[in-house]
Order: sequence, then structure tokens, then C-alpha cells
Amino acid sequence: MSPSPTDTGTRGPLLDPVFGAEQLGSALSDRAWIQALLDVEVALTRTAAALGRVDDAHAEAVAAAAAALADELDPAELGRRSAAGGNAVIPLVSLLRERADAPARAVHVGATSQDVLDTALVLLARRAGILVVTYLRSAAASAARLAATHRDTPMVARTLGQQALPTTFGALAATWLLALDDAADDLERVLTRLPAQYGGAAGTLAAVHPDGMAFADTFADQLGLTRPVAPWHTARNPITTLASTLGVAAGAVAKPATDIALMASTEFGEVAEDAPGGSSAMPHKRNPVAAITARAAARRVPGLVSTILSSTDHEFQRAAGAWHAEWETLCDLLRLTGGAAHRLSDSLAGLHVHTDALARNLDLTGGAILAEKVTAALAEHTEDARAVVTEAAVAGVPLDEAPGITAHLAPDEIRRLLDPTRYLGHAADIADRVLAHHDRHTGEKP
Amino acid sequence: MSPSPTDTGTRGPLLDPVFGAEQLGSALSDRAWIQALLDVEVALTRTAAALGRVDDAHAEAVAAAAAALADELDPAELGRRSAAGGNAVIPLVSLLRERADAPARAVHVGATSQDVLDTALVLLARRAGILVVTYLRSAAASAARLAATHRDTPMVARTLGQQALPTTFGALAATWLLALDDAADDLERVLTRLPAQYGGAAGTLAAVHPDGMAFADTFADQLGLTRPVAPWHTARNPITTLASTLGVAAGAVAKPATDIALMASTEFGEVAEDAPGGSSAMPHKRNPVAAITARAAARRVPGLVSTILSSTDHEFQRAAGAWHAEWETLCDLLRLTGGAAHRLSDSLAGLHVHTDALARNLDLTGGAILAEKVTAALAEHTEDARAVVTEAAVAGVPLDEAPGITAHLAPDEIRRLLDPTRYLGHAADIADRVLAHHDRHTGEKP
Amino acid sequence: MSPSPTDTGTRGPLLDPVFGAEQLGSALSDRAWIQALLDVEVALTRTAAALGRVDDAHAEAVAAAAAALADELDPAELGRRSAAGGNAVIPLVSLLRERADAPARAVHVGATSQDVLDTALVLLARRAGILVVTYLRSAAASAARLAATHRDTPMVARTLGQQALPTTFGALAATWLLALDDAADDLERVLTRLPAQYGGAAGTLAAVHPDGMAFADTFADQLGLTRPVAPWHTARNPITTLASTLGVAAGAVAKPATDIALMASTEFGEVAEDAPGGSSAMPHKRNPVAAITARAAARRVPGLVSTILSSTDHEFQRAAGAWHAEWETLCDLLRLTGGAAHRLSDSLAGLHVHTDALARNLDLTGGAILAEKVTAALAEHTEDARAVVTEAAVAGVPLDEAPGITAHLAPDEIRRLLDPTRYLGHAADIADRVLAHHDRHTGEKP
Amino acid sequence: MSPSPTDTGTRGPLLDPVFGAEQLGSALSDRAWIQALLDVEVALTRTAAALGRVDDAHAEAVAAAAAALADELDPAELGRRSAAGGNAVIPLVSLLRERADAPARAVHVGATSQDVLDTALVLLARRAGILVVTYLRSAAASAARLAATHRDTPMVARTLGQQALPTTFGALAATWLLALDDAADDLERVLTRLPAQYGGAAGTLAAVHPDGMAFADTFADQLGLTRPVAPWHTARNPITTLASTLGVAAGAVAKPATDIALMASTEFGEVAEDAPGGSSAMPHKRNPVAAITARAAARRVPGLVSTILSSTDHEFQRAAGAWHAEWETLCDLLRLTGGAAHRLSDSLAGLHVHTDALARNLDLTGGAILAEKVTAALAEHTEDARAVVTEAAVAGVPLDEAPGITAHLAPDEIRRLLDPTRYLGHAADIADRVLAHHDRHTGEKP
Repeated sequence: MSPSPTDTGTRGPLLDPVFGAEQLGSALSDRAWIQALLDVEVALTRTAAALGRVDDAHAEAVAAAAAALADELDPAELGRRSAAGGNAVIPLVSLLRERADAPARAVHVGATSQDVLDTALVLLARRAGILVVTYLRSAAASAARLAATHRDTPMVARTLGQQALPTTFGALAATWLLALDDAADDLERVLTRLPAQYGGAAGTLAAVHPDGMAFADTFADQLGLTRPVAPWHTARNPITTLASTLGVAAGAVAKPATDIALMASTEFGEVAEDAPGGSSAMPHKRNPVAAITARAAARRVPGLVSTILSSTDHEFQRAAGAWHAEWETLCDLLRLTGGAAHRLSDSLAGLHVHTDALARNLDLTGGAILAEKVTAALAEHTEDARAVVTEAAVAGVPLDEAPGITAHLAPDEIRRLLDPTRYLGHAADIADRVLAHHDRHTGEKP
Repeated sequence: MSPSPTDTGTRGPLLDPVFGAEQLGSALSDRAWIQALLDVEVALTRTAAALGRVDDAHAEAVAAAAAALADELDPAELGRRSAAGGNAVIPLVSLLRERADAPARAVHVGATSQDVLDTALVLLARRAGILVVTYLRSAAASAARLAATHRDTPMVARTLGQQALPTTFGALAATWLLALDDAADDLERVLTRLPAQYGGAAGTLAAVHPDGMAFADTFADQLGLTRPVAPWHTARNPITTLASTLGVAAGAVAKPATDIALMASTEFGEVAEDAPGGSSAMPHKRNPVAAITARAAARRVPGLVSTILSSTDHEFQRAAGAWHAEWETLCDLLRLTGGAAHRLSDSLAGLHVHTDALARNLDLTGGAILAEKVTAALAEHTEDARAVVTEAAVAGVPLDEAPGITAHLAPDEIRRLLDPTRYLGHAADIADRVLAHHDRHTGEKP
Repeated sequence: MSPSPTDTGTRGPLLDPVFGAEQLGSALSDRAWIQALLDVEVALTRTAAALGRVDDAHAEAVAAAAAALADELDPAELGRRSAAGGNAVIPLVSLLRERADAPARAVHVGATSQDVLDTALVLLARRAGILVVTYLRSAAASAARLAATHRDTPMVARTLGQQALPTTFGALAATWLLALDDAADDLERVLTRLPAQYGGAAGTLAAVHPDGMAFADTFADQLGLTRPVAPWHTARNPITTLASTLGVAAGAVAKPATDIALMASTEFGEVAEDAPGGSSAMPHKRNPVAAITARAAARRVPGLVSTILSSTDHEFQRAAGAWHAEWETLCDLLRLTGGAAHRLSDSLAGLHVHTDALARNLDLTGGAILAEKVTAALAEHTEDARAVVTEAAVAGVPLDEAPGITAHLAPDEIRRLLDPTRYLGHAADIADRVLAHHDRHTGEKP
Repeated sequence: MSPSPTDTGTRGPLLDPVFGAEQLGSALSDRAWIQALLDVEVALTRTAAALGRVDDAHAEAVAAAAAALADELDPAELGRRSAAGGNAVIPLVSLLRERADAPARAVHVGATSQDVLDTALVLLARRAGILVVTYLRSAAASAARLAATHRDTPMVARTLGQQALPTTFGALAATWLLALDDAADDLERVLTRLPAQYGGAAGTLAAVHPDGMAFADTFADQLGLTRPVAPWHTARNPITTLASTLGVAAGAVAKPATDIALMASTEFGEVAEDAPGGSSAMPHKRNPVAAITARAAARRVPGLVSTILSSTDHEFQRAAGAWHAEWETLCDLLRLTGGAAHRLSDSLAGLHVHTDALARNLDLTGGAILAEKVTAALAEHTEDARAVVTEAAVAGVPLDEAPGITAHLAPDEIRRLLDPTRYLGHAADIADRVLAHHDRHTGEKP
């Protein structure tokens, strides 16, 4: 098919699927923006109608015009007309006034561009944010399944890249779960509290005085958003808090994605994705593509959070730049955090856990990871315990065959001490505790 | 006085005061770190004693040795001994074992370095964080005072740098207040929830099995910290959430600091700090140094938040670098966010509001900011209303003297329409609402 | 017109124009990516033909198939097929092999996906980067014009927001010019050095051994790119250097954009854009929209630079995530830095400088900014000089009427000392020097 | 020893050694700052003397007073006195004027605080920067040694965490070398170009007119710094370029540090540091502490770069906050980038390369990584080649024993095809080319 002229300059569909953001891309597209802006304008008009400031018939005429515009409007055309004024609301209001069979004053009642843009951004954030929460919860559900299934599957714990002591795969998955659960909860809470914006040109609601407070509250209700204490044109906590919470969520994704990429490496061989990526040149490869692209998407989040946090110095009643910097940045944050969670969810959902490889790796040091227990037992018989054990270990002599040790401890006793499955500590308890926390928690949310 | 050799390489006292961080610098100094690390070690030993794993007398001997070390230990010496192992806990535990009149096993019971470092970091964050909250609340209290005092003081609202419409200084101060209140609340909540860390070498609490869960809980109680669901060695939400919340708080500081710096400029002349900075070369200068340095400190926060958020890919049971990257970064975040809040608090506490300048600036356009109201009134008489008013405005003819207007509207009526104090909308209501929110809120916290 | 199904999920055309990125959006669109990827594949085949590894006829068949695909391929379709393998090259090579009337081995000769993606990214960066340089040079040209025109136009210098001493508008514009010139030069240099990437699956060029080195060099020449010393699959200096240089350039844009936004404010009134943005609600407003949106775009750059710099930990021969994180980030950096430069160029090109306002503001303190000169002169007559002058200044007594001063200095002499045009220092010399640097410099580049 | 009161609030010596910044900590300490500030003041006075504006004897008196102050001044005391004016230069100049046996006008001649602070920062950057370059070059030298020694040592190349094809350790080390060399060169070039700052209160050099240009040039010469084209008080390219270049350098460190941490992991076992870190709890551990702390330090750099790049919106002739944000940030950038390079240099200098482990891992897939070569050879005999080989590989049948293959290819031929040392491509050539680039390059610098 031949590209239409309007295709020129669009982006998204080529790269979004790789980063798990196909649906999110749609939820945050140019068209989604236009729809949200129009939704806000319709809510303004209907609020005015509810307060008797606009005729009901006119409100419906505005709504009808908005519906038509949502279908017909070319984003590129609206974009070009936006440049002069610096935002899309100015030309959109003109178009709406032109199209609606209603007086001009029935449109954009008492509002300023920022009222419409901020509220539309909040609407987009709510809509896309619900997807992000869904992906996080889906990843959490898979992590929970892994924690339960592998509650007692031994594996080696690694600290600073080195084998340390035994643990279980369930305890590791529980670590993933804990962070994902917390991140999903926090994000859900923040999304629920997102406020509508309505303050008028100077943030005083002067144009609809003395109905301003009622107007602002009704408007928020219309859109299912939280009623703000006051206009927040330049008090950006709702934006910075949302951005930060997405940053925390991306961090909760990065951790399991990193573990999976490592455990799927040829040398570890402990997990494999259900649908690993291939390579045209190297047919033996089993790339954990979902975890890898989850990591990639998550890596792009912190810089964007810093952009939002750096743009809080909004001057006076409307910022000369800091505000404009938020729009695409927040959308990118939603898209990338959600995409990362989505890809992680894909990875976890079908994760193959190779218990044989876990066992093999656990045995890799021939018991050295538990040598300390032999030292401790030997120390009750000789003062040279540490030296004796270290010497055997360095020389590669199995500890249950080293004369300096067997002189004091029976080989069976030594092997018992070196048995990793006897030194799992509270690994299973930890999995249980995190799973209980997860169940209690998700149980609370019908 | 002559510098002692141990001074070499220290920093902090020279620059911290400029950025409001004199007290915070002490709360986060090398010595404060050592104290926190020792506090954690003492809590470990006492927890073990409480669970019958260590003799009470030994526990007290460890506590005594820790107290002595806190006084005597040279940070530089401990630092040099830390390099080989990559953290300060390893040599500190050696020293403590050497010094304490107790068996080695009475020290660092069942713990790994990260247990001690993470918990010490949390302790530092709690101690310094309380200072940050105090500064934020102090700034909020001053903003509240300004919002109340200037509830009805007219000033011009500015959007995108341009005079827009009238508002009040109280409404602007209320905007500052709202963001500061929310930021302080969020930070307080996050500080309260900071968990202790105790998982042992592999995060399984194996070394104190079967008392692991009880040990972890008792240990947290000892230090007045929250009991974690599970070890969070590599599930870093407590760290990322704290960092993000500090980022949001710094944003709440940046906004009023920016407004003050602008309003204090010679051309605006609307506010002045009580103790402005001078210049040796230019005695007429009245630099709003507190607001300026608040801005400077706040600007350094977002990049540090991104560092913390970028370091969430902790591998397996202990990260090979991502963990180490948190230590100083989180301290810097506390120091800078708190310092910014402190300097803002200084600025607001003694802020002089020049109501005459506010009035003069409000009048600067000779009513043009309200010309739209004249247009609206004139539109009831003629279809050319907008053209007539615009023509007069461009020509610089006072609207109450323009024949095209006075032909339809009485000069008195025109002046009434142009009177900014008659178009303040809900500015005072907004101040009241935010103040009520502030009172309700701070009232809840005895 | 009705949206086609393929429109779903696209973005760019709505917001790019606001941020000056209409052309850049096209240069970095999904289609531009596909074109660049195909250009690289064609260059691979032609290189192979040049080295006798592929028949010339087959190479041309591949080129023909690529040309057809560039027209026909739906980015969304390619995107969906990319998800499984984690990048678009895998399905693109399949398509090309399917379509080309040539054996499979004539396509993607000896290459790995990263060779194609990296080289395509470099091509996009070159193409878009030239636009960025053009915008920077255009802004610099306007700054140069302003520096020359206003070489001797007095204005007040402001430090920390306070009026300080006199300077000239030309000296200020020269400051803008200096930074823009340097940024454009550095970017041009970095673009010129961007290397092609060709290393094969393991970075050893094994598939085309023993022609590997010749192949890599010929391939770079084909595309007009620099020959790399060696494959740089995981040595990312070309990427980090480009990102950093864009960051420096965005900084050079932020400074003049900020000054213009401030000087255009109602209270300053010193400059106005030629096409300021209006407001539907407030017809008197003259928003410096170009400067404001330049600031907004520039603010989004530093966070993205940090993303690129944070993604340098590429593991072994191809990174598991760090590489994928670069693609869109680098495109966003080009788009936003270029857009910021473009909007600044718009702002500067038609900037109206209100010399009357400059003069009025220079006179705002009634000479206080030069009181120090009176103090110095008076100090030759009395030891109380500073106290006497300060007292008069604080009391608001004109210095040429203060008895304590006129007792020693003639009023004329005092007025001469207070005349700002007599204390411009080397402002004009500075403008000249920067202009000479600019001319020498742009003269060198025909 | 008991802590002196002046110890309170200092930091650095505890944590700097862990991150390789012991020397850098001293080069950037409070005392180093004071020394640099005093050096600049002395240079100002001597420049004035050279131009006949100050008596030589007075200049020497100022120099003597500065030398005394450098010894005696308590950073905390200067810090406290700095808060009011927002920088340390104001009280330092007072002290210097008080102490020097010279008239007040012999001190701080024609300068503004920013002249002194900016130039002192540049001096610190030069002094610390040379250390950073030294560490980078030292790391590069070790990488070169490894590339030469292991030019022909086979190892497996890994892409996306999966074993891909053979390469050599020398080629990998060459990748490290290439990036380190480029980073060191770029940093050296940027350090050499760092300009002095001298513009006076308004950036017009008015106080020393008509000698301003000569004064600025002489002043730069005195300090061995580059002569600036013009004052750059608010044109911050020298600062942003330095910060960015450090960011690129930290990236060049992160890559090899990451590889080493991975290769040192128990499962890989391919390298070990000469002085690995131990663990009190787990004596078998061999933590690659130098690489790990190099990674940690490098991770903290990108966020700081974004802070510097975000602080380029310097208003007018001196910024109200953006400038102050640079001071500590740039020092931290130098400290962390240098520390990262230092730790990497430690890691590489004594890196043990376990060629047996390299060989074992290369053989881990039993030839699967080269199965494609067997497929290609078999394809000349049967159309089912890919299916036959894949079936054998999946079934775990050695390819030289699979009947479907041996029917067409002799086992010897199959083993030859699967021999990784016969498929190293240009790995050795790449090492040679990068080493030649390194030699040419370091040869140029005696």
C-alpha cells in the first residue's frame, strides 16, 4: 500500500510493539489526545449547562460537534494551526465554535487553554495508567505463581555476582512480587487521586464567578476525576507525583527483567522464555527478548522522570515553558513504564524454570559455598579449623575426604553440613509471607 | 588555625551553609554514618540478646565498645580500610569484635554487610528526613501567613510572562502552600514507613533459623523502624519511593523560589527578602539570596532522583554496583531537598510584600488587561466592539476617553469595568480553601 | 476525512509543530527509519558486489526490491513482526529476501541486526543532525545581526535578577551568539565523524573473512560515513558523544530563549516577537510563543542525555537492553534539540527590540546603579563618602541634589558620573570580538 | 582520638576511598576550593600589577596574605560567612583586604564574585581533570596489555546474553581500549581549552576600562588557562562541554567494568581481580570489588550531567540559581568519573584471565554455536540440511555422530567446521588495529 501524505512524520507503530506499547501507543496517540481534549470541552459545556449558564440544547450541539470533529480532524492540520499559539486548544476551540450550532459563549466556558490541556492530560494518564496497572498486576500474578510453584526449589543465591549460599527460586520470585505489588498499589492510588483542572485565565475562576467553586467541582465529577482543593496550574504535585510513581514502577520491572536476562544466559541456563527471539544468523540462539525489551523500556524512564521534576519552576500563574515540557514527557513515561511492565509480564507468564540447571549451578563449587559450616563444626575440635578447611578448599580436595577434617568429623556429617537443601533458612517462609501479602492485598480489590 | 592532616579531603562545611544544609550536613556526615552503622550493630546484638542468642552482658559490652568507637574512630582510617571489601561494614565489624569484651559471634549476629548498611541508610534518612519535613512545614507556615495576610491584596496574574488578569497575592501564596503541604505530608508518610533490613548473607535469614522472622521484627522494633514484609536487599521500592518523594518536594520548593526571585527583580519590585545579599561591588543590590540558593539546591535534585531510579536493576541477591550507587546519592537528595526547603523557609519567613508595587504593576497596562470586559459590554451596543476597543488600545487612548466607546458606555461605567479589584473572582475563596486544608491538616498532627 | 485503521497509534504531527519539529518529525518518522534501514541493506549488498561476493545483477535486484518496499511497507505491520525478535531488521531482511530476485545470501551479507540498526541510526542522525545545525546557525545569524545592530544600545545588566550596571544589548546578543556558534561547530564536527557499523554476528567480521576490513571500509564509503577503527557494537562513544553534544546545543538555546521570555514580560517590555501568540480569552496578550516553546523543547533534552549516558553498560558483544534503549532516545534528542533551535531561530529572526524600554529600565533606579562611582569620587574629599551616598540613596534624594554630596562635587559632575552611557566598559568591544569570531568562523565554511 | 568540633558535618574520607576517589577527594575538598579561590585572587592582583594598576609591592602583600589565609582559614567559618551573600568570594575578599598590607583596591581588581568562582572552578577542574585523564590512560594501558597478550585467546562472543560465535579475549579488550582512548583524548582536549573568566560586575570589564581586554588575557595567561573570546558568565558551553565529556568517559568505564563483573561471576569464572574483596560471612567469595565500585561510581555520573545541562538557562548577566547549581555538581562529576576510571584501572591492572574457563565456556554448547556452518556445508548435499542439523542439536546428538549428517560429511570435516578457533574472523586484526591506533595516539603525546 502506498503511504498517504498524512503519514509523513508519524511515529509509533514501528517501534511501540517491540517495547510492549502497542495498546499504550493507541491510548496516547495524537487521536487519543484530540479525543481527550474534546471530552474536556464537552464536559465544560455540560457543566455550564448543569449550572444554568448554557442552554441544554446548546450543550448537546457542542457535544455533537465534538463527536464529529473527533472523527474528522486531521492531527497534522490541528498541529500546524497550534504552532502560533503554542498549544492545540486555541485552534480546537475555534473549530468547535465554528462547527457547533450554539453561540460561541457555550464553548470553553470560563476556561483557559491550560484547564483543557491539563485535564486532558490527566484523562490520558488515567486511561493509559489503568493499562500500566494491569500490566504490573499481570506480571505480579505470574511472579506469584512462580513463587508458589518454586517455594521449595533450591537455587544458589548470588551476591556481587558471586555464588554465596543456598536459597530458593521461590524466594527470588517473591522479591520480584513484593516490588511489583507495591508499585501497582502506589500507581493505582495516585491515578485515583488525579484532579481535574479548572481555574480560568488567571486561576481565579473569575469568568464564572460566583459559581466558580461549584463549577470546578461539577466539572471534575463529570469526568470522574478528583475535585482539586484549588487550581493547580503552577502547583504541579499531581504531575510530579504521577511521574515519580511511574519511575518507581519501572524500577520494580527492571529488577526481575535483569535477573531473567542473566539466568537465561547460556552459562547460567536456569530459565528460558516461552517464546525466545531467534536470530537469522545464529539459529541456536534463544534470546530472552521480552525481558530484554522490558529492561530497555525501563531504562528510559528515569531520565524522563528527571525532566518532569526539573520542570516544576512554573512562573506565576502559567509557566513559560515548564508546562509545555510536561505533555509528551508524561505520555512517554506512561508508554514506557507500561510497555516495560507488559514485556515483563510476557516474559514471566511463560517462563520455563530449569530446575536441573538450578541444581547443577548450586553444586558448582562442590560445597564451597557451605564450607563455613564445616569450619564452624570443626572449630569445636581444633583451633586451626579455618586454616584446615581453607587449605582443602584451595587444593580442591573434597572436604569429606580431607584428612585434617575427617580426623574430627565423620564424612556423613561433613556431607550433611554441605547439603544446600539443609541450609535454606526461611526462604520458604519468605515466599509464604510475600504471597500472603499479595493475596490479602489483591483479595481486597474485587 | 592549622589544618590537621585528617582535614585533607573533607568537604561540606564550606558550601553546605550557602545551600541551607548546615544542620543536614551534620546529620549526614561521615561521623553520622559511623554512628548509624554502630547503632545498627548494637541493635543486632541486643536483638540477639532478646532472643537468647547472645548473653546480655556481651550485648552490653558490644554497646560499650560501639560507643567508644563512635568517639574515637577516624572516618578516613575506616574509609581506607573499606576500599578492599567495598564497604565500611567489613572493617567496622572487625574493629567492634576486636574492641568488645565479648565473643566474635556476639557481633553482627546473622547479618550481612547490606543489612547494616541499608538499615543505617534508613536511619540516616529518618533523622535527616525529619529535618527536611520541618523545613517544608516551616516554609508552609510562612506561606500560610502570607496567604492569610494578603488574602485580599490585589496583584496582576501573569501567564507565559505576560500580564493576564487580576488576582491576589493571597491566591498566589495559597498555590505555594498547597504544594508544600502535600509534599511535607507525603514525605512524612514515606519516612514513617521506612523498613529495617535484615536478611543475612543470602536473604534467607538462615544464620538465625528458626528465629529469623522474630529476629527481623524485633530488630526493626529496636530501631523504631517499620517491620518489612521480607528482606528487600534487591527490591528497592523503599529507596526509590523515598528518592521520588524528595524529588516531588524539591519541585514544591522550586516554584515559590522562582516566583520570589522574579518578583524581587528590580523591574517587578514586588517583594524583598528580609536579609537580602549584598555585593561588594554594587552596594545598591538587594539579592534575594535565600530564594536563589533554594532554587539552586532544588535544581540539583531531579538528576539525583534519576540516578536512584536508574539503579534498580539489582542482580539476584545483592547488586554488583547498583546498590553502592545509592549511598551518597540518597544522602545528597536529603541534603539538597532539605537545604532548598530551609532556604525557602528563610526567604518566606521575612518576606516583605510591597503592596504599592503590586498596585503599580497591576495598573501598568492602564486597564488593557480588562479591556475584554469593555468589549463585552460594548458588544451589546455595536457589532464593531472588538475592533473599536482594539483600535483604542493600540493607539494608547484611555478606554474611558475613546469616543467610539464613550458613545455607548459612560466613562464611569468603563472605569468600573476596568477596575481590577472588581474582577478578582474567587481569589479570596481559593486562599480560604487552601488555608482550611492547611489548618485541618496540621491540626490533625499534634 | 475519516481516520484509516493504520492511523491508530501514531503520534507526532499534533505536537511536533508546536516544538519546531515539523521537518525533524518527518526526518525521524517511522518511514524515515524504514528508508534508512533499507538504505543500509542496499549498501551492504552493493559493498558485497564491489568485493565480488555478490553478482552486480543481484545487488541491483536487491536495491529494486528495497525501493519497492520503502513505498509499500506499512510501519505498523513491520512493527508487529518486529516484536518477537526485538528489532525490525529480522523481519525486514525476510521481506527483502522474499521480494528480491536474488539468492538469500545476496541480502544482509555478513551482517548482524545491530550492524544495520546502528548504521541506520547514524544515517538518521546525520540527516536530522544537518537540520539541527541549520537551525542553530540560523539562530546564530540572527543573534549576530542583533549584536551588530545594537552594538551600542545601552541597557541595564542584571545579576541575580537585580539591576547591576549598564551594558549594551549588543553585548548580551553576543553572549547568545558565542554559545550558539560553538554548539553548531561542535555538532557539525561530531556529525561528520559518525562511523558506519559493520562487525557481523560476533563483531569479528568472520562471515566475510578475509575481506572483513575492506568490506567495513567500503560499506562506510558507500554511505558517506566515517570508517570506524573497529566495530563499536558495545563501545558506544559515537552515540554518547552525539547525545552529549546535542545536550550542549540545547543549553546554548535555553539561555537566549530564557532571556527573551523575561525581556518580553509586561514589566520589562524590552523585546517582542514578531508573531507573538494570542489568547482567545485575553486579546491584549503578546506571548513570546517561539521563545517559550524553544525553552520547553530544550528542557526535555538533559534527561534524555542522561538516558543515553546511563545505557553504556553494554554487555560483551551485544547488550541485553542498553542498546535497544538508544533508538528512540537519540531520535528524540535530535528532534527536541533541533526543534528548540528552530523555535529560537523563529524568535530571534523577527525580534523587536524596544530601545525606549531599554532606556527606561536603565533609568529605573534613578542612577543608583552607578552610585558607587559617586562614592568613589566623593571618597577623595571625605572619609564618610559611602555613608553619605547610601543615606541619600535610601532617602530617595537625587544624588545631584544631596547637600552632603554637592558640598564636594558639582551637580554636573555627579550627573556625568551617573550617566550610564559613560560606563559601558568594553561592551562594544565584546560584541566586536564575538562577531569577528563568528565571521572568521562562518567564513571558513563556504 | 576525639572528634574536633570542626569535624562536624564533614564528609568524603569515609566513602571516597571505596569509589577510587581518595586523591580526587583531596583535589576537590573544601581546602582545595579555598586554595583555588585564593590563587585566582592573587592572579587578579598580579595581573593588575602587570598592567600598572597596582603596585608590585602591594601585589606581593596580597599574595602573602593569601598564602597565610590558605593555611589558617577554617572552611566552616568561611562557609558560615558565605551564606548571607550566597557565595564564598564575598567574605574571602573581605578577609583578604583585612589581612593584606595593601589598599583595598589592590584586591579583587575589577572583578565580580563570579569571575573568581568560575575561574576557581576551572582551576579545580583542570587539577582534578588531569587525575581523571591519568586514570583513564592507566586503564587504557592495561586494556592494551590485555588486548596484546590475548590477541589470539579464543572465547565465546555473547549477544543479548546468549552465546553467539567465537571471538578472542583480545578483541573484547580492544573494544574496551578503543572507548577509553577516545574518552581520554576528548577529556584532555576539553581540559586544555578551559577558559579563565573575567568580566567584572556586568560582564563589560568596565572597572578596568580601557585595559579590559588586555587584563582578561593576561589574567588567563597568569593561571595557564585559555583566553576566552568574551566573558562567559551566562554562556556556559565550557561547563556543559566539560560535564558532557566526563559523562562520555564514565560510559567508557561502565562497559568494561560490567563485562568484568559478569566474567568474574562464579558461573562464568573467566576472570578474577588480583585483590578480590572478601566477605566475613562467606570466605569462599572473590568479589570483583574494583569493577563493582567502578560501575557504582560510573552510574552516578549521567544524572549529574543532566543537572549541569538543565542549568543552562542563566538569566541575563548572572543567573539566579542555575549558576550556583554547578559548583558541587561539577566537582562530583570529576570525582565520580575519575574514581570510576581509577577503580577500573585497579581492576584491569591485575586482571587474571582464566584461559581454561574461556575454553570451557566456548565449548559449552558442544559446537552448537557453529552448527550453522555444518548446515551450510550439508546444504550442498541435501535440501533438508537445516532440519537435520536442528534435530540433532535439539536431541543433543553430537553433530559428528548424527547419521543424517555423517551420511554426507566426514566426522573430521564436521569437527573442523565446529572448531571455534577456525572461525575467529578478524578478531586478531581488530585487536591489532585498535592497538595501532592506541600506540600512534599515545606516541604522539610524550
